[in-house]
Amino acid sequence: MVVCLRLPSLTSSLFSSATANSLRRSPSFLRRRSIRQLPPSTLAAARFSAQGTAATEERADEKSKSGANSQERVITPRSQDFNAWYLDIIANAELADYGPVRGTMVIRPYGYAIWEAIQEYLNVKFKETGHSNMYFPQFIPYSFIEKEASHVEGFSPELALVTIGGGKELEEKLVVRPTSETIVNHMFTQWIHSYRDLPLMVNQWANVTRWEMRTKPFVRTLEFLWQEGHTAHATLEEAENEAIQMINVYTKFAYEQAAIPVIAGRKSRVETFAGASRTYTIEAMMGDRKALQAGTSHNLGQNFSRAFGTQFTDENGQRLHVWQTSWAVSTRFVGGIIMTHGDDAGLMLPPRLAPIQVVIIPIWKKDDDKTGVLNAASSVKDLLQTAGFKVKLDDSDQRTPGWKFNFWEMKGVPLRIEIGPRDVSSGSVVISRRDIPGKQGKVFGISMEPSTLAAYVKDKLGEIQASLLGHATLFRDSNIVDVSSYDELKVAISQGKWARGPWSASDEDELKVKEETGATIRCFPFEQPQGIKTCLMTGNPAEEVAIFAKSY
Amino acid sequence: MVVCLRLPSLTSSLFSSATANSLRRSPSFLRRRSIRQLPPSTLAAARFSAQGTAATEERADEKSKSGANSQERVITPRSQDFNAWYLDIIANAELADYGPVRGTMVIRPYGYAIWEAIQEYLNVKFKETGHSNMYFPQFIPYSFIEKEASHVEGFSPELALVTIGGGKELEEKLVVRPTSETIVNHMFTQWIHSYRDLPLMVNQWANVTRWEMRTKPFVRTLEFLWQEGHTAHATLEEAENEAIQMINVYTKFAYEQAAIPVIAGRKSRVETFAGASRTYTIEAMMGDRKALQAGTSHNLGQNFSRAFGTQFTDENGQRLHVWQTSWAVSTRFVGGIIMTHGDDAGLMLPPRLAPIQVVIIPIWKKDDDKTGVLNAASSVKDLLQTAGFKVKLDDSDQRTPGWKFNFWEMKGVPLRIEIGPRDVSSGSVVISRRDIPGKQGKVFGISMEPSTLAAYVKDKLGEIQASLLGHATLFRDSNIVDVSSYDELKVAISQGKWARGPWSASDEDELKVKEETGATIRCFPFEQPQGIKTCLMTGNPAEEVAIFAKSY
Repeated sequence: MVVCLRLPSLTSSLFSSATANSLRRSPSFLRRRSIRQLPPSTLAAARFSAQGTAATEERADEKSKSGANSQERVITPRSQDFNAWYLDIIANAELADYGPVRGTMVIRPYGYAIWEAIQEYLNVKFKETGHSNMYFPQFIPYSFIEKEASHVEGFSPELALVTIGGGKELEEKLVVRPTSETIVNHMFTQWIHSYRDLPLMVNQWANVTRWEMRTKPFVRTLEFLWQEGHTAHATLEEAENEAIQMINVYTKFAYEQAAIPVIAGRKSRVETFAGASRTYTIEAMMGDRKALQAGTSHNLGQNFSRAFGTQFTDENGQRLHVWQTSWAVSTRFVGGIIMTHGDDAGLMLPPRLAPIQVVIIPIWKKDDDKTGVLNAASSVKDLLQTAGFKVKLDDSDQRTPGWKFNFWEMKGVPLRIEIGPRDVSSGSVVISRRDIPGKQGKVFGISMEPSTLAAYVKDKLGEIQASLLGHATLFRDSNIVDVSSYDELKVAISQGKWARGPWSASDEDELKVKEETGATIRCFPFEQPQGIKTCLMTGNPAEEVAIFAKSY
Repeated sequence: MVVCLRLPSLTSSLFSSATANSLRRSPSFLRRRSIRQLPPSTLAAARFSAQGTAATEERADEKSKSGANSQERVITPRSQDFNAWYLDIIANAELADYGPVRGTMVIRPYGYAIWEAIQEYLNVKFKETGHSNMYFPQFIPYSFIEKEASHVEGFSPELALVTIGGGKELEEKLVVRPTSETIVNHMFTQWIHSYRDLPLMVNQWANVTRWEMRTKPFVRTLEFLWQEGHTAHATLEEAENEAIQMINVYTKFAYEQAAIPVIAGRKSRVETFAGASRTYTIEAMMGDRKALQAGTSHNLGQNFSRAFGTQFTDENGQRLHVWQTSWAVSTRFVGGIIMTHGDDAGLMLPPRLAPIQVVIIPIWKKDDDKTGVLNAASSVKDLLQTAGFKVKLDDSDQRTPGWKFNFWEMKGVPLRIEIGPRDVSSGSVVISRRDIPGKQGKVFGISMEPSTLAAYVKDKLGEIQASLLGHATLFRDSNIVDVSSYDELKVAISQGKWARGPWSASDEDELKVKEETGATIRCFPFEQPQGIKTCLMTGNPAEEVAIFAKSY
C-alpha cells in the first residue's frame, strides 16, 4: 500500500479535483434562489389556458409553452453549467439548505424522505444478511485514532475536536467520529472471547464529521449521515465473503432501487483505504460523466484487530486476531440520484425511491366544476393510496395548473394525473410521465375504475423505473472508451469520458496518470473482458482492465 | 418564571437527587458482570434433569431448582439494591455497555432493538399528525446559544465545545447540540415568509450531547438518542393545541405500547423549561417509586421567535412572530421500561416493544429424539413468524434447557414455548408466561396446529401486555397518597411514596419542599379530582392538586 487515505470513506478528497465551478462557488455551496421567485405575471397567461382545458391536447401545448420558456425558469440548463444546475435543483426542489456553520447542510423534508427510502431498503437487507443495528458513542478518545498508523495519517487533517466539556478543558481531546473502526474495535475486544462469539455483525445509522475544505451538498459535507457496518470473523475467507456480500447488496440497491448502473469492482492499491486488504467500490457515472464513488466495502484484514488486540480463542484453544470488514453508504447517494437522472426541468426520481410517486392535479375553470373535479381527484387519491402508492393531491387554490405541472416536474415526481371536468364526465384521467417530455409521455382516457387505474399506475411506474436505468446505462456505455495505449487514455479523459484498458503498471505510473490527466483508477471491474491483455502503459501482460475517470 | 432550567430536556439534573447508590457507583455506571460467569458446573445437574423431561411438570421443578438458587444468579435482588439490580440487568441482558469516554454508553443490539420498536411506533404517529422528518446539523455556533437568555443559562454548564477543526483553532467555538431550538429557529427564519408557510411541523431523530456529571445508563448519559419535534404556528392557540396533541401521543404510547401508566400533566412554573409558556410532561413511577420524566412537550410561545426574529406576514400584511412548540422522547424511555416491569429474574418486556416476543426451546435427551424435536421447533418458529410474531428458536447445543429458560427470562421475552419428544408425539407444545412465575404461568398441551397456536400466542401476548399495564397501575395507585397538609406530604415522601394534594403556594414554598423533602412537583395532572380544594401548604383556596415525588 503506497498511499494511505482514510478508511472507510466515501470520498477520496486528497486526490479529488474540484471543478472550477465548485471552487468558484465555494464556500456558499447553495445559491439562494427559490421557486417562489417564479414571476407570477409571466405565468398568468398559462393560468388561463391551463384552467380552461381538460382532457385535450391543448394542455400539453400549454404545458410546453410555460415549460419551454427558459427565462422564466430558475434552474440553470444542465448543459450550460452542470454544477450550477445541481445547486439550483437542490435549492428549488427544497432538498437541502445551508447550515450556519460552513460546509454543513440542513436536509429538508423532501431530501430527507429520499434518504429514508434508501434507509428502509438497506435496513431490511442488512437484517436479512444477519446484521443487528446498534449505536456507538460519537466521541472517541484522541489516543484511539493514533493506534492505527495509516488511520491517523488519513484522518487527522480533517478531525473536529472537542476540547471543552462542562465548562472545563478536557484532559484528553475527543474526536467527533469521522468513522468508527477504532471505537468499534475497542468494544469488540471486550465482547469477543471465543470462536462462539463470531461472526459478530453489526451496523449503525449515524452522523459523522469530516472537516472537508471543499464542500458540495450531499456529495461532500462537513457532517453527513450514513450507515456503517462492522463485522468480525474467525477467518480471512469469511471476512472476504462478507465484504463481497455487502458490495453486492449495494450494487443491487443501486440498480434496482436507484436505477443507477454502477460499476462494481476492486480499488487499486493506491486507492485502497488505509488498513484494508481490499476495498470494493461501486462507481456511478454522473450526468457530467464524472465518477461518483457511491459505496464501499472493505476487507480490513487484521489491521485493526492487531492495533486494538481484538482476539478470540479458537476451537483448539489458540488465541487469534479476528478478521474484519466495514462498509458504508451515505447521504452522498442522494447527490448521485440527482446527478444521474435529473434534466433541465429539474429532478427526476426513480419511482422506488420517490417520496411522491404520483401527483394529482385537479383542473377547473368554472366554480360549478370545482366540487366535481375535487371529489374525483380525492377519490383517485384514496384509491391509489389504498393500492399502496405514495400520492400527493395538489388541490391548492393559490397556483395555476400550469405552475403546478412545472413545480412537480421540477420535484421529479414520476407520474402526474390530471383531472378536469371532461375527465369527470367520462370517468377517466390523463396521465403524464416525468421521464418522457410533452405529448409522447401523456396518455388520455385512462379509466378511473379502481383496479384498472391502480394496475395502470403500477405498470407505468415499473416502466419508468426500467426506463431510467436503461437510459443511464446507455449513457454510461456510450461514454466508456476501450483504450489500449496511454495516448488513447489521454484522449478519452480529455473528452470527459471514462477510459477502460488493461493495467498492470506500477503505483507510480498510476499517480503519473492522475497528475497528467486528472483521472484516477476508479476500479478493476468485477466484469472483465475475455482474452489476452497487454498493459496500456507498459506493454507488459496484464490480468485485468481498469477504469480511469475524473471523479467527485 | 423563577428558575430557569433547560429546554427541552428529559432530565432535571440541576435539582436531581442522585441516590446514594448511584453516587457510590459513579463513575463506573455499569458493573462488569456477564452471564458468561454463570458457573457451568452448578448448572450441570440441571442439564441432566432438563434434557430428560418433556411436557411434564418436572420441567417446572427443574426450572425452579436452577432458577431459585440465588447464589448462582448474578442479578442483585431488586429489593436489596434497586440501582445494582438495574445495572445488573443492563449488563446481563446485553442492553448497553460503557463507552470509552466517561458517561457515554454503547447501545447493544438487544437494547437498540427496543429503541427501534419505540421509533417505529412514534415515527408513524408523528407522520399521521402531519410532521415531516428532516435533519439539522449538530454543530451550532456558540453565539446562537447566547441569543436566548434562559437557554444559555440552562445549557452553558453542560456543553461540549468543538474548538479545533481541520487542524486549526476555530474563530468561533461550536456547540455540539444539546437540543436544537436555536439552529431550528435560524433556519425557520429563512423558510417562513407568510401565513401560507405555516404551520411548519418537523421532527428529527438525532443524537444530542449534554455534559452530565452523574450518569446512569439510558436514564442520563453524556450522549443520547432522541427525537425532537419542532413546530411553528400562526397563533398561540394552534401552538397550544399542538403541544397538547404531542403529549397525548406520548401518553398513548406509554400506556398502549410500553405498558407504563404515566401521569400526564403540566409542570409547575419552577419546573417549566426556560422559554416555554407551558411544559407538559408524562411522569412514570419506577419500581423504586421514584418518578421518571419520560417525555415532555413545550409550548414555547414566542420566546425563540423573538430571539431569532422568526416572523411571518399574516393575511392583512402584518409582520408577526410565530408561536412554537418542541417535544422530545429519548433513549431514557428504555430505562423506564426496565425499571417499571423488571423483577428479580431480570428484564420483563411488554410484548409490543419486545425484540423477541416468543422464544422456542427444544428439549431432547436421546440423539434419536433430536431431529424430531428440532424439526417440530423449526416448523413452530416458521408458523409463528408467518403469523407476524417476533420469534427466536434457541437450538444451540451449548446450553441446557434450564440455562436457556433462565437466560431468556432474564432477557424479558414474554412467552416461552417448550417442545420435547412427548410434545412432538402429541402434536402440542408447552407455553410459559414471563410475567407469571412457575406453574401458574405454564400451560401444557397447546396444539401445534398453525391457526390454533397462532391464535393462542396472540391472545397470550395481549394478556401479558394488559397484565403488565394492570400490574404497574396497581403499583402506582397504591403508592400515591392524597395529602392535605405539609406534614402528611412529608410522611408520604419519607415513605418513598408520591404525595398528591391541592397546591396554590408560591415558588418559594415549592423550593422549600424540595429542600426539606427532596421531592419536587412532578406535575399538575390533567385528571383532577372534583370539589373544593385547600392548599396543603397555605390553607388558601387551590384550583388544582399537584403530585410531589422524588425523581431521577
